[in-house]
This record gives sequence, C-alpha cells and structure tokens, in this order.
Amino acid sequence: MLFAKPLGDLISQLEKLPGIGPKSAQRLAFYLVRQPEDDVRMLSESLVRAKQALRFCERCQNMSELALCSICSDAKRDQTTICVVAEPRDVAAVERINEYHGTYHVLHGLMSPMDGIGPENLKVRELLARLGGEMAEVIVATNPTIEGDATALYLAKLLKPTGVKVTRLAYGMPVGGELDYADSATLHSALEYRREL
Amino acid sequence: MLFAKPLGDLISQLEKLPGIGPKSAQRLAFYLVRQPEDDVRMLSESLVRAKQALRFCERCQNMSELALCSICSDAKRDQTTICVVAEPRDVAAVERINEYHGTYHVLHGLMSPMDGIGPENLKVRELLARLGGEMAEVIVATNPTIEGDATALYLAKLLKPTGVKVTRLAYGMPVGGELDYADSATLHSALEYRREL
Repeated sequence: MLFAKPLGDLISQLEKLPGIGPKSAQRLAFYLVRQPEDDVRMLSESLVRAKQALRFCERCQNMSELALCSICSDAKRDQTTICVVAEPRDVAAVERINEYHGTYHVLHGLMSPMDGIGPENLKVRELLARLGGEMAEVIVATNPTIEGDATALYLAKLLKPTGVKVTRLAYGMPVGGELDYADSATLHSALEYRREL
Repeated sequence: MLFAKPLGDLISQLEKLPGIGPKSAQRLAFYLVRQPEDDVRMLSESLVRAKQALRFCERCQNMSELALCSICSDAKRDQTTICVVAEPRDVAAVERINEYHGTYHVLHGLMSPMDGIGPENLKVRELLARLGGEMAEVIVATNPTIEGDATALYLAKLLKPTGVKVTRLAYGMPVGGELDYADSATLHSALEYRREL
C-alpha cells in the first residue's frame, strides 16, 4: 500500500476529476491534508452546497440558485436577445467582456451524431418555447468546431421559420494573432468573411 | 456576477489549490455540480476524513493513520536501513519501483537558507533519534537540486560521526535519455560519477 487508506481514498476521488491525473491528485491530496482543518472543511462544504443549491434556470437553463437566474430576472438586460451557448462556462466567457446586455440560452452540449447526441438531448425545446412575438435576435455562439457548426446550422434552420433574426459569432483571426501562426482553417475563414474597410 | 453564489464560492475554493488556475477551477466546478450527489458527497467526505484521520508516523514522520505507519510496523521490512526523503510523495515514488525493502524518514522539506528553512524546521532531530546501534545505512534520497544537495551534505556531516553508513542516490543520465538532450549539469554528473564496466 503506497498511502495510508484515507489518503489513498482521497487521491482516488481526486483522480476522477477531469484534467487531474494521478500525479496531480497526489499533489493535491498532500497539499490538502496539510491545510488547516477549517480550510479543508470549507472546501468540503462548498462542494456539497454548490451541488445542492444549484438548479437550471427555468428560462435560460443556466445554473441558478433561484427558479429564474439573475440575468433572466434582470429588467435592465435586453430580454429580446438570446445568446445561445453550449455550456454554462460559455455564459461566463461572454459576460466577462462586459459588452453583451441580452440574455442567454444554455444548450448543455452540442449536437454530435458520432456520440449519439441529437437536438433532443439538448435544451432546444426550451429555446423554441422562448421565441414569442417579442424576440428580436438569436445569436448562436457555439464553438467554431464541427459540433458547434452542426448545432448552429440546425438551429438556424429550426428558428428562421419563426421569423426571428438568427446570427452567429464571426469567424476570423484572433485579435493580436499572427498570420504566420494561424491555422489554415482560421485563415480560410478570415479570408472568406473579409469585410470592406 | 458571473456565477450563482454557491458556484462562485466553490470556484474560489478550488482556485486556492496548487496548480489549479481560474479556468481549471471553473471547469472542475461545472463538472462537479453535474455529478450525482452521492459522488460529490463522497469526495467531500474523503477530504475531511483524510484531514482528520492522518497524522505523522511517530518514527518516520510519513503520513499515517496509526501511531506507527504500515512500513515502520512491518517486520518484513529491513528496519536497519533508512531512506531519507523530503516529502511523503517521495516515499510513494520509491515504493512504486518495488525494490526497496527498508524504511523511510520524511524530512517534510529541504534546507533552503533563502527561504529561512534550516535543519531545525525539518524532521532532522527525529532522524537522529532513530540512529541506535542497529542502524546499518542511511540513504539520502533528496532531489538533485540546490536545496536537496545542501540537505544531503548537511545530513552526511551530521550523521557520519554516529558511525552509520551514509549514501546518496546516484546522479547521471536518466535511463532511456539521449545524450543530445541531456542538460549539461546532468551530463557533467554522469561523466564525473562514471563507473567501470
């Protein structure tokens, strides 16, 4: 036995986390057992509390403590614009730029026929239900990957008949990037979607 | 507010862990709140249990559930040989090769005058106390770094007068390594400690 049992248990629990290999799990475990007991208890409790207190916002499906999340219940946000993203972390990414004042819709995944994930496995029905007469625009902000593209195309086809404007994030060179280092798919998109100056 | 409060709390707890940046903390938090509640509870409990159940083995200072760790209380281990390491994880590293059958001594750090860490901050006194008449060899297995070297030299000076044999792990080319890629300090050591064939 390499480790005392409670330590081994903790390590194997930590190893299950995404991006945490055996080495990191060990390092984390050794770090944790050396922290003051109060700190460890705080982490332990915030784990259970987060799990218990969070549910999906009944409108946008983002993580929320209340039935309606803070964005969906905010009268200062433009409730006629929906930014559709794959995951809750994408909401955080868009919020961070502090420029978007509409609402979100979290699909909780992307279409991936290879993995057997179709629109029925995503929060697409909930998105459709939000498209009342008031809705001005749906911005599809899925990742520029095969799955993100497929989902965006599917949503465009599905939503356009409802009369809502459907847009998608621009593809192109990342700001500050160098042509020399851009992959050819990005460069191809940047060229294809070039704008007049 | 980017995240619902319980989620934000969990993220800031996770961010405190070594090697976990803001992005990884978010990713972990989102992953965790999607796991079944039982799994989250298991992790949460193993954290507190590991913290509460572990102490230092009173002989070798490794993490242990009991007053004496499983190695120090194992009659099949050679109790006359001590492998001195800096951290508990180093014990695991040596155990993994399955070739060493002696005991360990964990210093819980290395000497580092720059950081104000001297021998009095390490478990050196506890090591000295173990050197009774029966002890055959002390293998210093500290890292081949400045701190590891300094600690090894200090221990050699301190222990030799007690009559015990003090050795150190060999420096040299890592097995499977390529000369071409070896750093010059390693190559220098490999040359200096060359063996006759």
